[in-house]
Amino acid sequence: MNSSQPANKAAPASRYDIAGLIAELGDVPLVTDTTTVRRRSRDYFWYSPILNAQLHGKSADIVAVPRSEADVVKVAGACARRRIPITPRGLSTGNYGQAVPLEGGVLLDLSAMTRIVWHKPGVVRVEAGAKLVDIDSALVPAGWELRMHPSTKRMATVGGFVCGGSGGVGSITHGGLREPGNVIAARMVTVEETPRIIELRGEATQKINRTFGTTGIVVELEMPLAPAWPWIDVVVAFDDFYDAVQVGHEIALADGIVKKLITPIKWPLPAYFGPLKVHCPEGKSILALMIAEASLESFKSLLKGRGEITLEMPMDESPAKIPLYEYTWNHTTLQVLKTDRTVTYLQCLYPHDRVMQAVKTMTEMFGDEVIPHLEFIRFGGRVTCSALPVVRYSTAERLNEIIDLFEENGVTIANPHVYTVEDGSRHKRTDADQLGFKREADPFGLLNPGKMRTYVPVRG
Amino acid sequence: MNSSQPANKAAPASRYDIAGLIAELGDVPLVTDTTTVRRRSRDYFWYSPILNAQLHGKSADIVAVPRSEADVVKVAGACARRRIPITPRGLSTGNYGQAVPLEGGVLLDLSAMTRIVWHKPGVVRVEAGAKLVDIDSALVPAGWELRMHPSTKRMATVGGFVCGGSGGVGSITHGGLREPGNVIAARMVTVEETPRIIELRGEATQKINRTFGTTGIVVELEMPLAPAWPWIDVVVAFDDFYDAVQVGHEIALADGIVKKLITPIKWPLPAYFGPLKVHCPEGKSILALMIAEASLESFKSLLKGRGEITLEMPMDESPAKIPLYEYTWNHTTLQVLKTDRTVTYLQCLYPHDRVMQAVKTMTEMFGDEVIPHLEFIRFGGRVTCSALPVVRYSTAERLNEIIDLFEENGVTIANPHVYTVEDGSRHKRTDADQLGFKREADPFGLLNPGKMRTYVPVRG
Repeated sequence: MNSSQPANKAAPASRYDIAGLIAELGDVPLVTDTTTVRRRSRDYFWYSPILNAQLHGKSADIVAVPRSEADVVKVAGACARRRIPITPRGLSTGNYGQAVPLEGGVLLDLSAMTRIVWHKPGVVRVEAGAKLVDIDSALVPAGWELRMHPSTKRMATVGGFVCGGSGGVGSITHGGLREPGNVIAARMVTVEETPRIIELRGEATQKINRTFGTTGIVVELEMPLAPAWPWIDVVVAFDDFYDAVQVGHEIALADGIVKKLITPIKWPLPAYFGPLKVHCPEGKSILALMIAEASLESFKSLLKGRGEITLEMPMDESPAKIPLYEYTWNHTTLQVLKTDRTVTYLQCLYPHDRVMQAVKTMTEMFGDEVIPHLEFIRFGGRVTCSALPVVRYSTAERLNEIIDLFEENGVTIANPHVYTVEDGSRHKRTDADQLGFKREADPFGLLNPGKMRTYVPVRG
Repeated sequence: MNSSQPANKAAPASRYDIAGLIAELGDVPLVTDTTTVRRRSRDYFWYSPILNAQLHGKSADIVAVPRSEADVVKVAGACARRRIPITPRGLSTGNYGQAVPLEGGVLLDLSAMTRIVWHKPGVVRVEAGAKLVDIDSALVPAGWELRMHPSTKRMATVGGFVCGGSGGVGSITHGGLREPGNVIAARMVTVEETPRIIELRGEATQKINRTFGTTGIVVELEMPLAPAWPWIDVVVAFDDFYDAVQVGHEIALADGIVKKLITPIKWPLPAYFGPLKVHCPEGKSILALMIAEASLESFKSLLKGRGEITLEMPMDESPAKIPLYEYTWNHTTLQVLKTDRTVTYLQCLYPHDRVMQAVKTMTEMFGDEVIPHLEFIRFGGRVTCSALPVVRYSTAERLNEIIDLFEENGVTIANPHVYTVEDGSRHKRTDADQLGFKREADPFGLLNPGKMRTYVPVRG
């Protein structure tokens, strides 16, 4: 999908030695056409009216599309020697401008590095540009799948997910990407005059968690796998939103029921759900779930007839279909944005020890201004829910007021309306020494300068 | 293993028409030899000095060993018509006298009904007498295993586990048997003059949960499966018991690490561990774990060098070996009892929201009188720990005092020193209408009369 802000100005003269760089890069595939470069320099930041204003017009000078680690090393070294910024990107499905070059330079599009290096039971090693859907397609016949994925699974790369995401479909079972064991290893290229290769393993992988590629260029990832269950997409309709939340919470806590997604969505959000609308009765809130086929009977037994099952079919990710997860997580917002551009969203984390109470408080506080849509997850080993409520946007001041009200009530906010690493993430961040690692991997501060705003380059 | 109380008295005359029963049962295999009948009428209740005194000398009149459901129906009908009690049993590895006939009659030994009826991805249907280890042996080549098992896996039947157990190895991932989805269906034979077959499915299976076979004779079970991981037995030694508990808690909460067992054991219990002793350094508390091979690196990364890994080898259940789980759960008590018959045990459930604090309080309160051994589990969707501390036994009064002290500190006790369904289970029980179901399935009250002590037969 394209943005609402077409890039249509003339290219400004670059402050960098782009011509010299191009000459040095030789046969590394490049894109220099200004319109294309500008289009690729964007991501889905336009979900936020605030980011949309702030990031408007930001663009790389050229795009490099490495075919291999050797190409990445070539680009990194050439840029380091010329002090030209590099912004790594996958397929730019993020929402925080994570793939938007703040200071121009080279946009390093890793989406051509898609190789599955190897896989064994429980673990896969892949190049960073492999699409999540393609990894699963390759693994499912062997009985495995990635533990979690964003709602953009069919569009996004594994590298983009690990560097910019926090969790998603599957996090109700495995927690988020930040949980120990959810990223096994990452192979990095440093941005130095002579780039080095660094293999981060175990806890050390936290150094790249949600840093948008500012702490090194990720070229390979070793990811843990889950056994692949045949998943059933299920929609249950409820008269009362809180019943959907209550049932969702019970399923979330039921360790005997294998599930991948538990999403309560308050009416009227389902009214915007296009092809799914036929399964969303007028006026009803829904609970969207992915349940393992073998657990379906147990799920229904726990449901005890509360709510009406309006959809029950095997999950289908083939191109002509829309899997249920594309109505959940931040796709919920997208479904509304398709017909109503006046809304935006927030990212909330509810307190695990009083989920129901906090959901009621926040839902009643805002009425139609903030319409809840929750995602049950495990966080730090505890079942709770994150939430991506759809917010009817008025002003930045009011948005910040809403954020403050959530936080005053113990619901933490990962603000998606700021674009720096430090300001946006909060509960999604780890306490790894990311700044310290950046000093090693990016001494000149060339990886999208300004994105990790507290970083001071150690070399000029 | 045999009990400490050999049955060596002469058989008393039975109050039932056993001769008529034998005649009617025809070719159903029976055991009538008094010594054998008495020996089979026992289980591991002798772990409790109190039960050992109370159940001493209790015995069936004969043992019936049905080969099929048809045999069970024959026995049930013949006993119902003659008002002869029936006590179903598996392989009698329980600890509450659950297989001890309180009023004589027929001991119904289901251990010859071992057939795997069918299995499909995620689900197996088996006869009640199948041994847990045999079920896993049959399934693992297809990539599946039972979700959980007691430490008696190599000796116990699935029927005995479901009717008498509560959880075990695997419950850190899947919770206990009482969690929705952990028993899919149970096929029952009623004890009526013309027995009926009842299939319980979903929530209805709670009617047999931990009732020791008093609510109907379970002949088949449909059990959910987990993907079979290659498990690694790991022992980590710590100077300080609380460090073992702390690390155990972290692993328990780490949803990215695949595990099946997390057992902190305080020194000096490991001193009693026979062949494992070589991996248990003098004076050190240990943490015993089963970690999926694919998660071993992540586990070590989270361990961060705290404690010394003294054992790391693939789990081996072959007859000549002792898998690590046979030092955990109630096998911990057994390992001590092998050389010290003055101890007994308790079954505790710690509060999930203050595990560490409560463990410290209770450990310091009793010193060497109550030596802690914890089992991390999920209970109702929350990570907590159960515990089977080894208790140096003095008197029944002191034991009850200890129980009261635990409960006053928020640690609930499932008292293993009482033998009725109602008195023993507490947190292990469900709120299903088990008494009501018993009225349907056992109207004459013949299923081990006295075991469900609040039951009043509806027919004479």
